[in-house]
Amino acid sequence: LPRPFFFEVKETDLMGRVGQVTVGKKRFETPCLTPVVHPVWRDIPLSQFKAMGFDVLMTNSYILYKRQGKEAIEKGIHDLIGFEGVIMTDSGGYQVLEYGDAEFTPEEIAEFQSKIGSDLAVTLDRPTGYSISRAHARETMRASLSAAEATIRKFPDSETTWVGPIQGGVFGDLVRASARGLTRAGFQFLALGSPVELMEGYMFSPLVEMIVNARSAMAYAMPMHLFGAGHPLTLPLSVALGCDTFDSASYMLYAKKDRYMTERGTVPLDRMTYLPCGCPVCNSTSLEALRAEPREDRVRKVALHNLHVLRADVLRCKEAIYEGRLWDLVEERAMAHPRSASAFRALVRDRVDWLAKPTRLLKLRGLMVRSEEDTSRPELALARKHLSRLMSARRPAAKTIAVLVTSSAAPPLTRRSAKVPRAGALGKAEIYRINPQIGPYPAELEFVFPFAQTISDRQATEASLTASVKKLRAMGYAKVVVARGSRGIARARTRKRAPRSR
Amino acid sequence: LPRPFFFEVKETDLMGRVGQVTVGKKRFETPCLTPVVHPVWRDIPLSQFKAMGFDVLMTNSYILYKRQGKEAIEKGIHDLIGFEGVIMTDSGGYQVLEYGDAEFTPEEIAEFQSKIGSDLAVTLDRPTGYSISRAHARETMRASLSAAEATIRKFPDSETTWVGPIQGGVFGDLVRASARGLTRAGFQFLALGSPVELMEGYMFSPLVEMIVNARSAMAYAMPMHLFGAGHPLTLPLSVALGCDTFDSASYMLYAKKDRYMTERGTVPLDRMTYLPCGCPVCNSTSLEALRAEPREDRVRKVALHNLHVLRADVLRCKEAIYEGRLWDLVEERAMAHPRSASAFRALVRDRVDWLAKPTRLLKLRGLMVRSEEDTSRPELALARKHLSRLMSARRPAAKTIAVLVTSSAAPPLTRRSAKVPRAGALGKAEIYRINPQIGPYPAELEFVFPFAQTISDRQATEASLTASVKKLRAMGYAKVVVARGSRGIARARTRKRAPRSR
Repeated sequence: LPRPFFFEVKETDLMGRVGQVTVGKKRFETPCLTPVVHPVWRDIPLSQFKAMGFDVLMTNSYILYKRQGKEAIEKGIHDLIGFEGVIMTDSGGYQVLEYGDAEFTPEEIAEFQSKIGSDLAVTLDRPTGYSISRAHARETMRASLSAAEATIRKFPDSETTWVGPIQGGVFGDLVRASARGLTRAGFQFLALGSPVELMEGYMFSPLVEMIVNARSAMAYAMPMHLFGAGHPLTLPLSVALGCDTFDSASYMLYAKKDRYMTERGTVPLDRMTYLPCGCPVCNSTSLEALRAEPREDRVRKVALHNLHVLRADVLRCKEAIYEGRLWDLVEERAMAHPRSASAFRALVRDRVDWLAKPTRLLKLRGLMVRSEEDTSRPELALARKHLSRLMSARRPAAKTIAVLVTSSAAPPLTRRSAKVPRAGALGKAEIYRINPQIGPYPAELEFVFPFAQTISDRQATEASLTASVKKLRAMGYAKVVVARGSRGIARARTRKRAPRSR
Repeated sequence: LPRPFFFEVKETDLMGRVGQVTVGKKRFETPCLTPVVHPVWRDIPLSQFKAMGFDVLMTNSYILYKRQGKEAIEKGIHDLIGFEGVIMTDSGGYQVLEYGDAEFTPEEIAEFQSKIGSDLAVTLDRPTGYSISRAHARETMRASLSAAEATIRKFPDSETTWVGPIQGGVFGDLVRASARGLTRAGFQFLALGSPVELMEGYMFSPLVEMIVNARSAMAYAMPMHLFGAGHPLTLPLSVALGCDTFDSASYMLYAKKDRYMTERGTVPLDRMTYLPCGCPVCNSTSLEALRAEPREDRVRKVALHNLHVLRADVLRCKEAIYEGRLWDLVEERAMAHPRSASAFRALVRDRVDWLAKPTRLLKLRGLMVRSEEDTSRPELALARKHLSRLMSARRPAAKTIAVLVTSSAAPPLTRRSAKVPRAGALGKAEIYRINPQIGPYPAELEFVFPFAQTISDRQATEASLTASVKKLRAMGYAKVVVARGSRGIARARTRKRAPRSR
C-alpha cells in the first residue's frame, strides 16, 4: 500500500493558503521554504536547519547517485545526511542536461530516489527554461510529462510520493496542458519548473502569468512547489498566487558571491556600511568583523543570515494570511522594484477575479486603501458585486425617503455610529451610508465587513455624492436627503423639511 | 570651560543624514534611537542595551529627583544606573504638568541635571501637545523658551550640554519662532516636542509639517531630537526630514500592553499566529511558549523583541542614507497605512524642493521609478533643472541634425551603449537619448547620473517622443532623426536619408 499523502488547507487569503502536508508519518506546514543542501558536503550543519524551524530539505539525487550512490542506498538518505525531517529530492534534470548524461533514464533515477527513501521526489524532467521557441518548450514539456507518466506507472506503490514537474515555460497553454497531464497521471503534488531565468531577469509579469496558468489548471486542493524561488522580492507574490513550497539554494549561492539578502533584494557586502538586520548573526558581529573573516566562515555566516531573512519572510507571509493582509504585504514588497511594481499592477488589472475566489469574506482587520490598485481589492470587488445584487432587488415602498449619511467622522463599530440605524424613526425613511470605494449602502450593513471597515484617506467627494444620490433616486425613493454627520440625522428627524435635499 | 559639543555630518540623503555627535569625551552616531529607561527600576538590564549597540539612553530627571535625588547627586547618574554611555535626561515637563508641581523651577531641575552629570539635558518645558488653541500653543512655547533661556544663562559653563525644547505644536510660525529663539539663546542641540499625539492619531501630514517647520528654522548643521518617536511607521520618514535622535519608551509601553512590534505597526499578541521575525528572541521561542510565560518574563521578551525591531530599523535608515535610497525606504514604509501613504504624497507635492537641497547629485545605485510620486524624486527634479539650463544654452551650428536614439534595449554603462557617441560620425549630427522621466538629453550625458541610471518600467511613449522632437527642433536643428535602437543608428550612418524623419 502506498503511504498516505494529504494536503489540508487551514487558512486562505487571495490564492495563498496556510496548509499542512502529511507525507507518511511526517507533517509540515506550508508555505514552506525547503533549503537546498548539497548531498555530500556541508557548509552549515543540518542540525542548524532544524533548529531554525526548517522541516523540509531539498537535495539533488543525480549528484548523490554519481558521488555516493551505493552508500545512499545502504543507509538511506535520512541516515546518510543526518536529517530526520522531510527530504525532497530533485531529479537532477538540470544536471543531466548540463552534463549530457543521456544514458541516465527516468526509471533509473526514480528507482534510486525510491530506494534511498526520499519522502518527496521530483521525476526526471527536461527544464524548458526561458525559451522563446515554442517547439523547444513543447518538446521539453512532453518529455517531462512522459518521464513522469512512466515513473508513476512503474513505481505506483512506492514509499516515495512523486512530484510531477510542470514545464512549458512562458507558453501558457503548454503549462496548462502539462499540469493537466500530470494530474491525469495521478500525481498529488506538482512542481512548477523554469521560473529561475524569469526571476533573475526581473521578468515578473511573465512569471506571474506562468504561475497563474499552472495554478488554474490544477485543483485548488493540490499543493504546488515552485522551483528555485528563494528571493524575498518574489516570495509574498508567489505565495499569493498559490505556491505552497519553494526550494532555494539562493541563501548559499548569494553568500558565495558575498551578497547579503534583505527584504528588498541582495546587496554586495563591499557596498554596505552596516548590517541592517536583527538576526542572531547580525546581532553578534559587525560588518568590519564579517568582512575580515576567512572566506569560509564569512560565507557560512552570510548564508545563515540569508536563511534568517527567508525564514522570517515565510513567517511574515503565513502571518499575513491569518491576518487577511496578504494583499498588503504583496503590494508593499512589490514597491521594492519598478518591475515588481508593474507586475503587481498588471496582476491587479488582469487577474483580480481569479485571485479573489478563495478570499475570506470576513476579515478581522480593517481593509486598507492606500493606492489606486487598492480600490480593486478582492474584498471590495466582492462587496460591490453583492451590494449591486442586493440594491437591485430593493423596491422602496411608496413615499419612502432615503437618508444618505455622509459622516466619516463617526468611526464604525462604536456607540456613536450605532445611533444611525435608530434614525430610521425619521418617518418612512431608509438610511444609507457611503463608502467611497463601494458607493451607498444600507446602514444596516455597517456591521457587515467590509462596508464600514475600510481604512482610507479618500473621502466621499461631491461627485461621488451626486452619483450616489442619483443611484438611490433611480431605485424609486420619493426623495433623497443628504445628512452630514450624526447631527445632520438629528436635524432631519426634528424638521419637516430635510436639511438638504437633492 | 564648557566641554566640547560637535555635530559632524558624514553622509546625506534627502534632508536625512548620518552624523556623529561628540559630547565631552563620548561619541555617538546618528540617526540614533535613545531608549527611555526608568531612572529607578529595571525591566531590562542596561548591559543588554549596550550589547545591542544603543550608545545613548534617555531617562527622566523629575522622577529621579523625587525618588532618589540625593543618591543621584552623590553617585552621579552614570554610576547610579550603571551605564557608561551617553545619558540624556528629559526635564520632566510632562510630569510637572501632570502632577501640578508648580514649585519646581526650571533652575532647580537644571541644577539637578547638571549635578548628576547628564551628558545631554533638556531644559524644563511646557509641552504644547496637540492643541487646537493658538493661545495655549503660544503660551506653552513662550514659557518653554523663557525657561530655556534662563537655564542656559544661569549654567553656561556646565558639564552638561543643554538641549532646547521646541514647542508650538501644529502652529508652524510658533514652531519656527521657538527654534529661532533657542538658536539665538545659544543652544547647539534642539528637541522637537509634542509629536506623540499626532503619531498616535495617525495625523502624519501635520506631523510632517511640524518637523519641516522646526527643521527649516534651524541651521542644517545643528542636530535635532524628536521626542517620543519610537515607531517604525514614522522612523524612516522622520529621518528623511532631518531628525537625528529619537527617544522612545514605546518598546516597553507596547510590551506592557502585549503588543508586538513589526515594521508595519504593532499587533496584539493574542491576535497573532506566528512570530514573524528573525531576532534572537523570536528565534528562541514560539508564540505559544511566549504567551504561556509569566507576565513579567513575557513583557521583558516582547520589549526586547521590540527593541530589536527598532534597532534594525535605525540601521536600515542609516544604510539607506549611504546607499542613496532613503526615498525608497520612506515610500515603501509609507505604504503600510493609508494615512502615512497620503502624508508621503503630500510631502512630495509640497516639499520636494526643500527635501532635495542636501541630496547628493551622484549616487552609486540606479534611481528607481515605481510610482507616480517617484517621477518627482529630487534627483530627477535636479537633473531636469540642470538639463534645461544646459539645453537652453545650446546653439546648434547651421545644417546640424539631431539624432534621437530611443533604444531602451541597450542598457546604460555597457559596451553596447558606449557605441552611441561614436555614431556622431553621422555627418554634422548631434546624438540625443531619451529618459522618460527627464526628456531628451545629449548622449554624452549618458555617463552622468541620473540620465541613464533610471530604473523604470515606463517606456518613452509616442507622445513623449513627439514632444522631444518638438523640443529639439525648437533648439534650431535642421532636422531631427528618430533612430530606434543601435541598429537604427547604424542605418542612419550608411544611408543618405535618415530611416525616419519627423
